[in-house]
Amino acid sequence: MTEAGAQLRAAPAPRAEPVPACNDLAVDAISRERLTRDFLAVRAATENLAATLTAEDQNIQSMPGASPVKWHRAHTTWFFETFVLKPHHADWREIDPAWAYLFNSYYNGVGEQYPRPQRGLISRPDVGEVGRYRSAVDQAVVELIESAPIERWQELAAIVRLGLNHEQQHQELIATDLKHGFSQNPLHPAWTDRPAAAEREAAELRWIGFEERIAQIGAFDDGRFCFDNEMPRHREVVESFQLASRPVTCGEYLAFMEDGGYGKADLWLSDGWAWLQETRIDAPLYWQRDDDGRWWQYTLGGLRPVDEDETLAHVSFYEAFAYAQWAGARLPTEAEWEIAAGSATDGNGPFADDGRLHPTAVTEDRNGSPAGMFGNVWEWTASSYAPYPGFQAPRGAVGEYNGKFMANQMVLRGGSCATPKGHVRATYRNFFYPPDRWQFSGIRLARRA
Amino acid sequence: MTEAGAQLRAAPAPRAEPVPACNDLAVDAISRERLTRDFLAVRAATENLAATLTAEDQNIQSMPGASPVKWHRAHTTWFFETFVLKPHHADWREIDPAWAYLFNSYYNGVGEQYPRPQRGLISRPDVGEVGRYRSAVDQAVVELIESAPIERWQELAAIVRLGLNHEQQHQELIATDLKHGFSQNPLHPAWTDRPAAAEREAAELRWIGFEERIAQIGAFDDGRFCFDNEMPRHREVVESFQLASRPVTCGEYLAFMEDGGYGKADLWLSDGWAWLQETRIDAPLYWQRDDDGRWWQYTLGGLRPVDEDETLAHVSFYEAFAYAQWAGARLPTEAEWEIAAGSATDGNGPFADDGRLHPTAVTEDRNGSPAGMFGNVWEWTASSYAPYPGFQAPRGAVGEYNGKFMANQMVLRGGSCATPKGHVRATYRNFFYPPDRWQFSGIRLARRA
Amino acid sequence: MTEAGAQLRAAPAPRAEPVPACNDLAVDAISRERLTRDFLAVRAATENLAATLTAEDQNIQSMPGASPVKWHRAHTTWFFETFVLKPHHADWREIDPAWAYLFNSYYNGVGEQYPRPQRGLISRPDVGEVGRYRSAVDQAVVELIESAPIERWQELAAIVRLGLNHEQQHQELIATDLKHGFSQNPLHPAWTDRPAAAEREAAELRWIGFEERIAQIGAFDDGRFCFDNEMPRHREVVESFQLASRPVTCGEYLAFMEDGGYGKADLWLSDGWAWLQETRIDAPLYWQRDDDGRWWQYTLGGLRPVDEDETLAHVSFYEAFAYAQWAGARLPTEAEWEIAAGSATDGNGPFADDGRLHPTAVTEDRNGSPAGMFGNVWEWTASSYAPYPGFQAPRGAVGEYNGKFMANQMVLRGGSCATPKGHVRATYRNFFYPPDRWQFSGIRLARRA
Amino acid sequence: MTEAGAQLRAAPAPRAEPVPACNDLAVDAISRERLTRDFLAVRAATENLAATLTAEDQNIQSMPGASPVKWHRAHTTWFFETFVLKPHHADWREIDPAWAYLFNSYYNGVGEQYPRPQRGLISRPDVGEVGRYRSAVDQAVVELIESAPIERWQELAAIVRLGLNHEQQHQELIATDLKHGFSQNPLHPAWTDRPAAAEREAAELRWIGFEERIAQIGAFDDGRFCFDNEMPRHREVVESFQLASRPVTCGEYLAFMEDGGYGKADLWLSDGWAWLQETRIDAPLYWQRDDDGRWWQYTLGGLRPVDEDETLAHVSFYEAFAYAQWAGARLPTEAEWEIAAGSATDGNGPFADDGRLHPTAVTEDRNGSPAGMFGNVWEWTASSYAPYPGFQAPRGAVGEYNGKFMANQMVLRGGSCATPKGHVRATYRNFFYPPDRWQFSGIRLARRA
Repeated sequence: MTEAGAQLRAAPAPRAEPVPACNDLAVDAISRERLTRDFLAVRAATENLAATLTAEDQNIQSMPGASPVKWHRAHTTWFFETFVLKPHHADWREIDPAWAYLFNSYYNGVGEQYPRPQRGLISRPDVGEVGRYRSAVDQAVVELIESAPIERWQELAAIVRLGLNHEQQHQELIATDLKHGFSQNPLHPAWTDRPAAAEREAAELRWIGFEERIAQIGAFDDGRFCFDNEMPRHREVVESFQLASRPVTCGEYLAFMEDGGYGKADLWLSDGWAWLQETRIDAPLYWQRDDDGRWWQYTLGGLRPVDEDETLAHVSFYEAFAYAQWAGARLPTEAEWEIAAGSATDGNGPFADDGRLHPTAVTEDRNGSPAGMFGNVWEWTASSYAPYPGFQAPRGAVGEYNGKFMANQMVLRGGSCATPKGHVRATYRNFFYPPDRWQFSGIRLARRA
Repeated sequence: MTEAGAQLRAAPAPRAEPVPACNDLAVDAISRERLTRDFLAVRAATENLAATLTAEDQNIQSMPGASPVKWHRAHTTWFFETFVLKPHHADWREIDPAWAYLFNSYYNGVGEQYPRPQRGLISRPDVGEVGRYRSAVDQAVVELIESAPIERWQELAAIVRLGLNHEQQHQELIATDLKHGFSQNPLHPAWTDRPAAAEREAAELRWIGFEERIAQIGAFDDGRFCFDNEMPRHREVVESFQLASRPVTCGEYLAFMEDGGYGKADLWLSDGWAWLQETRIDAPLYWQRDDDGRWWQYTLGGLRPVDEDETLAHVSFYEAFAYAQWAGARLPTEAEWEIAAGSATDGNGPFADDGRLHPTAVTEDRNGSPAGMFGNVWEWTASSYAPYPGFQAPRGAVGEYNGKFMANQMVLRGGSCATPKGHVRATYRNFFYPPDRWQFSGIRLARRA
Repeated sequence: MTEAGAQLRAAPAPRAEPVPACNDLAVDAISRERLTRDFLAVRAATENLAATLTAEDQNIQSMPGASPVKWHRAHTTWFFETFVLKPHHADWREIDPAWAYLFNSYYNGVGEQYPRPQRGLISRPDVGEVGRYRSAVDQAVVELIESAPIERWQELAAIVRLGLNHEQQHQELIATDLKHGFSQNPLHPAWTDRPAAAEREAAELRWIGFEERIAQIGAFDDGRFCFDNEMPRHREVVESFQLASRPVTCGEYLAFMEDGGYGKADLWLSDGWAWLQETRIDAPLYWQRDDDGRWWQYTLGGLRPVDEDETLAHVSFYEAFAYAQWAGARLPTEAEWEIAAGSATDGNGPFADDGRLHPTAVTEDRNGSPAGMFGNVWEWTASSYAPYPGFQAPRGAVGEYNGKFMANQMVLRGGSCATPKGHVRATYRNFFYPPDRWQFSGIRLARRA
Repeated sequence: MTEAGAQLRAAPAPRAEPVPACNDLAVDAISRERLTRDFLAVRAATENLAATLTAEDQNIQSMPGASPVKWHRAHTTWFFETFVLKPHHADWREIDPAWAYLFNSYYNGVGEQYPRPQRGLISRPDVGEVGRYRSAVDQAVVELIESAPIERWQELAAIVRLGLNHEQQHQELIATDLKHGFSQNPLHPAWTDRPAAAEREAAELRWIGFEERIAQIGAFDDGRFCFDNEMPRHREVVESFQLASRPVTCGEYLAFMEDGGYGKADLWLSDGWAWLQETRIDAPLYWQRDDDGRWWQYTLGGLRPVDEDETLAHVSFYEAFAYAQWAGARLPTEAEWEIAAGSATDGNGPFADDGRLHPTAVTEDRNGSPAGMFGNVWEWTASSYAPYPGFQAPRGAVGEYNGKFMANQMVLRGGSCATPKGHVRATYRNFFYPPDRWQFSGIRLARRA
């Protein structure tokens, strides 16, 4: 029975090779071969993530906003079945109408949905059936890519590419939802056995200045992939500002905590302060203190001491705002962040493909540009998630993708250590509610020039 | 992919042979051979229940009051580890202190407990590890039974026998908790493929009279097994009364529903009426109406039409009370029930060993005694769960077994179709909260003589 | 502006003379004169209670289970309007149908009710209108008493007498609901300026023995007033027991607290322990500790130090149970309490008429009987509130008075310092939910002989 | 007793004369005479509002976000006591430290606060004491204005002026909070007996175009009054757009309702749809349907039929968004609204001074500009409430005024029929949470040019 402990040391979380998901190509430049290759690679990356998980691991749901791994595997497949196979594949026969009900996330346009908070109760279909579902859909999509008539090719390529980007988003959620689920287990299960990143020192924080401008914000409409919420490209007046050369470290945040930051009402937004009183939160998610007062954090590699040089993650927008107040700074707007990202040259990652699924310390960018803008941790911005001027949601159920979430959420930028490499870009807009903490969400400061 | 549906047709729920768990013997008459045999049989019956379930099936938890099958398997094992092996087996080494935290249900005397509503989040240890845990404990307990010194034999036999009766209670919960979990799945998974009981007509309802008396209530203290809450045997004045010859049928309850019973405030207890307003309940648990107005019920054999002759199950105490008011009768007290059970001769069952896990119609008892008193459905009584005069909880953590639940709950009597045969007796007291419905709980009427 | 504080020193809470509400007479012995006198006296006692309260005082509702004073004044009037004037007074014209909706408490038989938790939102009718409503109803009832035809006299006298006893219950609630409301105000308003009872020492606790018996429990059906739930008188087997000579004092309860009683799970019922974890309660209601660790309690005379000799009040059934466990005793059943009350001769009170509305220390009974059985504090019993054998609720809406509350509540006995003198008797059954604390509820211990 | 109904017909809600609160003057141009006059006028306007209310009316609190009238009267006084008298008036003696605790709304910088949801429980101090508190503070402030040393005059004038604008905001809340409280009363109390506005037809809806520009948004820093959140004035790129010539009418909104707007998920934001499912809302606040299907609305003049020409009020941001989607339009951003307000010339009001406290129909502006931009109803914008670029909250407790609410709320513009005349301006930013409906909040549409 002593192997029990050993059982918990997970097999390595497989490292997928970076998969560009055809994002670097205009839609009319996508070949059948390339799409097939990327399709299979993205789909395999998902399966890879699940490969070392038990059936139970794949079925747990630790909060209404998280979903089981098995559900993610089925839902991403349902997306291809619903938006690719049903409209395009003449011979496709739906497996079971109840599955559409179970695995539709929120697309009201294509039917009712099983209640989200109960996804962890779906023991059937089991992991084996979901695996067979994925295979069957994969096979049919590949057939379709190979055989679709030329006059429907662009439409097909566009929706398959959207499905791949959608699936990559769920790959990130598989990691963050599973981390939340595992964190409830007092055994502290490890998913990955990759050693933590070599310890290294974080760069000293510098302020990098940007001149005022009328900036062009958002993505070009040039056929390369972006989500609808990144468009249209438009002008914004941006005053001169300074941005921190790197995100906030765990050590810096500890200083805030030790200075009583969680107890100083004047640092907090009113809603943030109410949230603190209600939740009694006094540290980032996954942090815990031992009897000697030493801080530990649960990671996907198990429980580890907090490393002061590592980039801070798992804080809410409220904590990010309060920290910035305490530091005499503020959070950047998303326009500021996007301007700065245009100048970023180095220091990126880690991404999901690295296999550690944990942030690392950010070192100096050798060109003096802002370092660590992509990967590592998502960075909360001061901007609420809203449509760009002239935004039009696409017609049909796919139009529900982004637009209907444009209330009450804040924008995060840059990707994280759980984002597949190649998935993010400077114009990419992620969004979560101010109290959300289970993403790898961190802080980069800005201030007036 | 079309086998998917077929997958859901479960293999037969294995029928365990009736296991008396040494209950018919005084503790000083239990031999090592008999205890070993019963121990192995009860433990095997639990494993049998889980044998056809997937790992995910075993891990779901559909409400705070229910537990995953895997947890039941581990908890019953923890009981033997904690109360048998640790005090009695010199060589036993605890596997992992965290397991004691995970699998302790509510025994404050032996440590903290993992929060009950989160048991469905325990993906690790997985089903395989729990199986090995069971085997290791089984082996050690058997060794101990065979080798325990004679001077500690009675103490050991008593606690092992308690553990077996405890495990049988959890066998019933495995069935009822799983049923609740499966009922959340729109695929209506079937656990058992045993055909429903042969259709037969329920007996006509008769009233059986009992004379007033000073009754002896509760179990004898003669060394045969009973739970602490069945003692001490004591006297109660019981006025003359009449008891229904059989429990209420689905058809009778439908008449109550069709008469607007759920809408008539005067039939309901005040708390029951508030519960109705809050939950909007208007039918027994697991019942649903199709578009043609026909009633169906989810059973462990899948979705089936409601059979009017079948014994009603899955109603709350509030519904039982309101039905009795509507019928011009009342519920029996537990003393009345126990007196009547002394005269019961026939018509018992079904029990869990029958493998159908569903109530059946009750036919006439050939001696004119109350029929169907044991098995089939638990019968709500009018008695709140309270200590018998002179009740003393045993010392130590085992003393938490029953006494501390003696508030806010109502007594049910007689066992159900999910109770292992041989587990219940006339003095057996089960107890649940008035709104609880996920047990096989039904109604038997009483009235003044 | 410095008078502001002075304003808060309330005028004296008027002491009503004891009013027997005709309870000592058989219904056929009640004269018109006597009923008129008692009617006017009980009605005046209510107005007396409200006389020194501001309009705002009379309108606050601090929890769903409490009601504003103004509402109590209107509701008791509505009772006479609905059950006396409407059926018996030919010329009575309802003021406003909406008032019936507003001031019906829970009688489903006579119509819908305004939501209970919102009674504090009824600013109109204002206190003046409610006063006029009371006067108009009083005048009509007195007319009716004087003029009712002889053949309807007994029926009328019975319902008026019920209305008076009902109003006395609301007099007690006026005190306890207002105390709860005032306790939310950091100014600690005082309602009464009567000095606290002269300090005196509590008697030493003795155990008084009672032999086993087949007891007659409940009220005689002899035409004298009792509530329906006190009948029918019936036999119960009661084993020999001992009862404490007086209720628990604040000092004794402090010893329990100082011994860590609120932190010892083994003393508590399971539901009680869960209640503690949820509410974080660690002292009786209205107690608070100052920075020097000294205990104070909010009383209707303002904030006062806890007096160790005073009788403990404002504990829940859960706390009463835990205290008894800690003290190596238990709570008495209601039959035991009623047997003992039959032998009580002295040491009763205080009652509401005393005007202090606060418990006092209990001294030795000069005959050696249990002291302080009536008045002072209600005493939690171990008995859940259930119908006596053969109980039949009266027909019609008045039948909703007691029966429908017979679930989930525990019986308290003996009356309190807020009960009008003459209102309680040995067979009187009060009932509240186990967590309820805002009544003057205390503890008397019992144990095995 | 029949006057009871008559009692409910309120005396007229007094019409205060428009009071500019010195807002039109630069702070250094404010004379002692003018400030005294405006101070007394604003303070009197508040008392005027309360004059016809009973003490109970002034004490009710119907939801956590609303406050009792008495509390508003005390809190606005506390503001002057805390920020004017304490720092500036040497002889001022605080009445009771507990009053500061009771009447501080949310200024953490000056101490703890009594829990907001319990303000309706503060029966003491009563309305008389609060009236005396107001008088005492008024007298001291007037003394101070007359006698303050010249070197502190500007500082004093600025904070008094802020206090007056703060008090005007609470005048609006007195109306909207009281309306919410009264609406809970089935007697439908009327506060004002002013006849509804003369019935008139709403103008036909036209679209008014605005060219793209780099706009100057926000208030000038010229010493005239504005709130901190209106500054700094800054540039924004605004694309060309069209704005509706008037706000949405009740009739237009009824068409949305009749078209099933509340049941079409694709019209709603995701959070809005979830809010609908949870609350089961299907009409604006205060609307109810009679048995004939006719719509009524509760107004401060009592219950009245919905008038199709009247301007719609009491909708949430979610409803405003869905209506705009349904109408093929969108909500304006606050920059768009502010640009358009610069061109508004007519059609304004009604304001609170009008005494009806209810919206009216909007007729055509005679210059063709957008009509009804000021007064009548607040207009939800598409903009979340955020700091303007370069925003700095003032130092000290007054700095808590606006900045800390900059999360999760949406901006409304233009004032309402409950806003004191002279209080709003084109740059004025109001803000509420997306589900809030108890303000007079309506809809004006915008669309792409």
